[in-house]
Amino acid sequence: MTGNSFGQQFRITTAGESHGPANLVIIDGCPPGVALSESDIQPDLDRRRPGQSKITTQRREPDTARILSGVFEGKTTGTAIAIIVENTDQRSRDYGDIMEKYRPGHADYTYDAKYGFRDYRGGGRASARETVARVAAGAVARKLLAGYGIEVIGFVTQVGDVTASIPDPLAVTQSAVEANIARCPDETAAQAMIELIDRMRKAQDSIGGVAAIVAKHVPPGLGEPVFGKLKADLAHGLMSIPAVTAFEYGAGFDVAQARGSENNDRFTMQDGQVTTVGNRHGGMLGGISSGLPIVLRVAVKPTSSLSKPQDTIDRAGHAVSISTRGRHDPCLLPRFVPIGEAMVLVTLADHLLRWRAQCPDQYAAWRNGAQRAHFATPGDRTNPE
Amino acid sequence: MTGNSFGQQFRITTAGESHGPANLVIIDGCPPGVALSESDIQPDLDRRRPGQSKITTQRREPDTARILSGVFEGKTTGTAIAIIVENTDQRSRDYGDIMEKYRPGHADYTYDAKYGFRDYRGGGRASARETVARVAAGAVARKLLAGYGIEVIGFVTQVGDVTASIPDPLAVTQSAVEANIARCPDETAAQAMIELIDRMRKAQDSIGGVAAIVAKHVPPGLGEPVFGKLKADLAHGLMSIPAVTAFEYGAGFDVAQARGSENNDRFTMQDGQVTTVGNRHGGMLGGISSGLPIVLRVAVKPTSSLSKPQDTIDRAGHAVSISTRGRHDPCLLPRFVPIGEAMVLVTLADHLLRWRAQCPDQYAAWRNGAQRAHFATPGDRTNPE
Amino acid sequence: MTGNSFGQQFRITTAGESHGPANLVIIDGCPPGVALSESDIQPDLDRRRPGQSKITTQRREPDTARILSGVFEGKTTGTAIAIIVENTDQRSRDYGDIMEKYRPGHADYTYDAKYGFRDYRGGGRASARETVARVAAGAVARKLLAGYGIEVIGFVTQVGDVTASIPDPLAVTQSAVEANIARCPDETAAQAMIELIDRMRKAQDSIGGVAAIVAKHVPPGLGEPVFGKLKADLAHGLMSIPAVTAFEYGAGFDVAQARGSENNDRFTMQDGQVTTVGNRHGGMLGGISSGLPIVLRVAVKPTSSLSKPQDTIDRAGHAVSISTRGRHDPCLLPRFVPIGEAMVLVTLADHLLRWRAQCPDQYAAWRNGAQRAHFATPGDRTNPE
Amino acid sequence: MTGNSFGQQFRITTAGESHGPANLVIIDGCPPGVALSESDIQPDLDRRRPGQSKITTQRREPDTARILSGVFEGKTTGTAIAIIVENTDQRSRDYGDIMEKYRPGHADYTYDAKYGFRDYRGGGRASARETVARVAAGAVARKLLAGYGIEVIGFVTQVGDVTASIPDPLAVTQSAVEANIARCPDETAAQAMIELIDRMRKAQDSIGGVAAIVAKHVPPGLGEPVFGKLKADLAHGLMSIPAVTAFEYGAGFDVAQARGSENNDRFTMQDGQVTTVGNRHGGMLGGISSGLPIVLRVAVKPTSSLSKPQDTIDRAGHAVSISTRGRHDPCLLPRFVPIGEAMVLVTLADHLLRWRAQCPDQYAAWRNGAQRAHFATPGDRTNPE
Repeated sequence: MTGNSFGQQFRITTAGESHGPANLVIIDGCPPGVALSESDIQPDLDRRRPGQSKITTQRREPDTARILSGVFEGKTTGTAIAIIVENTDQRSRDYGDIMEKYRPGHADYTYDAKYGFRDYRGGGRASARETVARVAAGAVARKLLAGYGIEVIGFVTQVGDVTASIPDPLAVTQSAVEANIARCPDETAAQAMIELIDRMRKAQDSIGGVAAIVAKHVPPGLGEPVFGKLKADLAHGLMSIPAVTAFEYGAGFDVAQARGSENNDRFTMQDGQVTTVGNRHGGMLGGISSGLPIVLRVAVKPTSSLSKPQDTIDRAGHAVSISTRGRHDPCLLPRFVPIGEAMVLVTLADHLLRWRAQCPDQYAAWRNGAQRAHFATPGDRTNPE
Repeated sequence: MTGNSFGQQFRITTAGESHGPANLVIIDGCPPGVALSESDIQPDLDRRRPGQSKITTQRREPDTARILSGVFEGKTTGTAIAIIVENTDQRSRDYGDIMEKYRPGHADYTYDAKYGFRDYRGGGRASARETVARVAAGAVARKLLAGYGIEVIGFVTQVGDVTASIPDPLAVTQSAVEANIARCPDETAAQAMIELIDRMRKAQDSIGGVAAIVAKHVPPGLGEPVFGKLKADLAHGLMSIPAVTAFEYGAGFDVAQARGSENNDRFTMQDGQVTTVGNRHGGMLGGISSGLPIVLRVAVKPTSSLSKPQDTIDRAGHAVSISTRGRHDPCLLPRFVPIGEAMVLVTLADHLLRWRAQCPDQYAAWRNGAQRAHFATPGDRTNPE
Repeated sequence: MTGNSFGQQFRITTAGESHGPANLVIIDGCPPGVALSESDIQPDLDRRRPGQSKITTQRREPDTARILSGVFEGKTTGTAIAIIVENTDQRSRDYGDIMEKYRPGHADYTYDAKYGFRDYRGGGRASARETVARVAAGAVARKLLAGYGIEVIGFVTQVGDVTASIPDPLAVTQSAVEANIARCPDETAAQAMIELIDRMRKAQDSIGGVAAIVAKHVPPGLGEPVFGKLKADLAHGLMSIPAVTAFEYGAGFDVAQARGSENNDRFTMQDGQVTTVGNRHGGMLGGISSGLPIVLRVAVKPTSSLSKPQDTIDRAGHAVSISTRGRHDPCLLPRFVPIGEAMVLVTLADHLLRWRAQCPDQYAAWRNGAQRAHFATPGDRTNPE
Repeated sequence: MTGNSFGQQFRITTAGESHGPANLVIIDGCPPGVALSESDIQPDLDRRRPGQSKITTQRREPDTARILSGVFEGKTTGTAIAIIVENTDQRSRDYGDIMEKYRPGHADYTYDAKYGFRDYRGGGRASARETVARVAAGAVARKLLAGYGIEVIGFVTQVGDVTASIPDPLAVTQSAVEANIARCPDETAAQAMIELIDRMRKAQDSIGGVAAIVAKHVPPGLGEPVFGKLKADLAHGLMSIPAVTAFEYGAGFDVAQARGSENNDRFTMQDGQVTTVGNRHGGMLGGISSGLPIVLRVAVKPTSSLSKPQDTIDRAGHAVSISTRGRHDPCLLPRFVPIGEAMVLVTLADHLLRWRAQCPDQYAAWRNGAQRAHFATPGDRTNPE
């Protein structure tokens, strides 16, 4: 898999820099006949858009998606879908500082080390601006998966020392998430998060956090043995997002302290369906989906760009000070939610297609019984915190 | 990338089941001229081998590697390397229980859901037995990378509630790791771990833990933008290992509570080389190696197989009890170390080759200056705990 | 796609050298539930086997396939299938000549140029011995495709100046092909071919030829736009076989002299099915199968190894003479037939799976109507000569 | 490899339809530091452009390339390069005919069979319009390869029954090719071709032909064993172009009549370099480049679209007549030349990068000695006709 592509059967390839003319994605392998227009893509782009609230960067980008191919008369044709998002707010400005200095926590030095030089305008390809293309692709996957009842919802569970209380993560709805600008369904925690983020902004500093993502109504059977495990591809997708430093699913790091007799979710039947009591396994066993909700969490580091002066060096190795002027998110978490969802959506779409390529009979059996209620009671739920 | 393959330019493909005749790996893209024989592979296989100590499973496998192709007169030829490890201790026995019952925490049910049926003998392809092929491939990558001075060392940092104290993880040597059967370089903690594991064994239970892996002398510049980030491929490789439920690098989940001004490692010069003060970034910035040590950690769940009876269901959905007889590791961590190292080694080998494919000048510059001492002082180190 | 792998969803990876211990293949993505045993593989290996007749090399290899994984209780499990064929007749001998000299027409020099040195024993990885692994994989694909009524038959149409007369290539049966050792269904031509080949052998020379391959009952819809066209993947697969120097399908090179009004096959209906009058398009339009028989032809060069002395140079650049002693096919065509079929089979299996991944509804419609007789009359047929 | 991507280390992914807003390509893996601007791309686009002469389609497209990413201050950065070519002349018109009828020789029916429906406007993704993206990518590869002295030149050798006489194909220059609108370096034949094409146009018919492509100064050592052979990837690339029905290299189909003693090119030394007497092997042995010029030929069928009425059926299966109005090339060959070159260029760029990934020492040795004159005399040349 080359650096700018992800997926095998539902495969995305992106391009674009922070201050270039556009970001774009080509989606290969999307099934034909999916109703799709720009209006399916725009809502997720809007959720990711800079300038959406007082706690995000004030860069102004309309982030308008334009479909260039692969859709005809309102439906996907099965051929390559290209979506472009033009950059409009690339201010002409003096890049002198970041041109010569290595911003701490950024990819400036590593790009120089790798390639010998770099596009220093706004971080170039290393900027989180590239995630606009992921979100566009994720919206297409979301539309596809919705046809199968599969739903993916992310939300913020921690910012700094503010931790949300979410008694039933599987009950979190997207409207609850969108009810506040922190994208945290615990209203009280959300307000504390917003306040903390605002404090960071004023202090010319930034703050990290944690987001959870839940995927519901995933059929049992997605994922492949060994390297193609669903947990491995999800980890790959999420860890490829800028600023993500940790990934866990189900009980995650807590398994270290658990005994097998505590950690194993025992199988049982419910409404004629196989399920488990508890979901410490986060919806995946042997790397293959069990039909229970997939529950995962990632850590997102505090924004590296700070208005506050930081010590560093320049390309010549001289000690210098740098302060990154202007428009940065004091906390990445609120805008991270649709980005993280996008990678989960794309990964699930890929594995759904791979599954039916190899196992058409099992796929058909699931389709025929898909209406049956899985995992309906509180007993099946895991608290991702 | 199909389920049984990993990597792009240095690419491994494996096959084999727990109770089949053999496990094997084909390595594609290994450079020619690397001195290689079975004796380079055997030490890592021995570190992974079952029955190596009183705290591991007592399954008896010599795990002898045999090279079937790709090596001539003691050197790799550049063509596909095949390595086979025959299974010898597949006891003929009564599989009745696991044939019909779904073991909690295992892939029995998910394989049935995916494929319609499964090879139930010892877990088939879902058994951790497949990791013998990863370790064989990792040993080849280790030999290749040693020629560049790149070194990968893993060790156990936690078992249950026993946490090791490792003041300087970068100073951990492989001999310190191998000094005890827990593979924990903190001798005191190691003894407590061994005692805990033994207690679990006697209780017919199992226990989880955490391992750290450090890669030293990695050139700055490995990894690709967007989906091909080194952190993403490392996460993919490690999360693809059975029983791994969480991954983090550098400060990992701790970034959630950090401010940018605390979390950013500032750049500085040392002996004419770019380095950073501190290594909260775990050796990767923008997903590309910085030249500082790569430091990562993974959580490994407690063994799912328990001698203790557990409630579950059978294929017909009836409630039953299961107790998995016999030979299981009460804790996976000690044997996990070489497996985790293998995935890091293979990932680094792949990215080293990809780097010189695209950036031969930067690669050559590094080769010419590789002798220079990087990152030598305590100030550059991060404690992975 | 790395050098030793082929296919995307049904993917094969091979390893092994001419005089190493074994050749082997790992098949990834094969559907579960396909009845498979060594006895399904052996017949194709026997058709490829050296020493099968007086006009082939007299190297003695039983070429016995052994399945190492992926099959349980007589059925594929969906996990990686590994098949090994051990080499038994690697005579210990003096390799002095080919060790130092570059055989004309062989890969000795190009491997040296690529890798710096080479495994010179019998040609190493460049030997056609590697095709035993392709044929094993092809036999698995054949078993899979037989379940869908898809059939692939190859035969020899030309050896030197002897050209077969095959009025109706679609009527050629495998038993007609196997009726003589030339694998040419025109008995008269076959005898002339055998005589010519025998004359070449006595003259210490060799002779080239042409083979045709026909695939019947392929559903319309296989192949993907642009680079994934079925014609492109078939060309890739066949041109990857040693000694193949040319590929054409349908009217092939004859299109150069044709007008559009002659070359276009007009569409018509037959028994309620879409078909065409004539099949100059060789069963593919826009690179996607049309449902008509796929008809292709490849040229195979005369064996490069000759007992007759040839002028060449050695590694030091000195002019020398070389005569390759011993066991070579004076004509590759008879043994080529199962090898060429194997690549067509693997390619079709891959695209069948890719099609149902993306287009499950179209796939299901075909399955439901697959019994209907397609392309039944002579008018639909193309003479591949 | 998914349908819309080609290559491994230098990898292209395209999207776009004939009558959609744009065609585009993303190039992944291009080395950094290559001087590149739109003016490097435009000349090849102009050679492919419709309406360039009286014997091509009169569709008016400026085909202006715009680089959207991956280039900074006039040089490639090593990150994904995106190039877009907007479509301007998508006339609003009545598509009624091709909407309902299956054009003979076109992909209308096979797309319907595959996907269930299709974008019928101008052929959608199946239109040769997509090749504009290939040519843009090829121009980038050309710029890259020029830095190594590698040169790729294509030309028309046959149209209908007019065959060019080209005594020394290796002496053909691009200016000789561009000297006439047939792109045939034999001026006399070129005039006959132009006249024939014009006659076809007036007869509302079309005509096929053959093109040759020569790659010079390719280092020995490109290509990989087994499935990654250079000949296989070249065949894949060229056979993926619309209307190409046959591929051969070196002696091609002529090997069928040759004896080994005639067909083998014997090795010899020239100016201290290994070379061969004659080049029937077309610059590849064992699928790996020998350093001699790569010489290949492909057949291109007559344009399927005809103004002349043709019998066919509609989607309902009714017999109808169709005449495709308007702007088609009566012969595809003149505009094919830059398209075929593009696929050769991209394939060589990919393998050059793959070679230095795996064999940096052999690559460095070639770089250091690349000035030495290879293959200078007439004796080394092959006539591709």
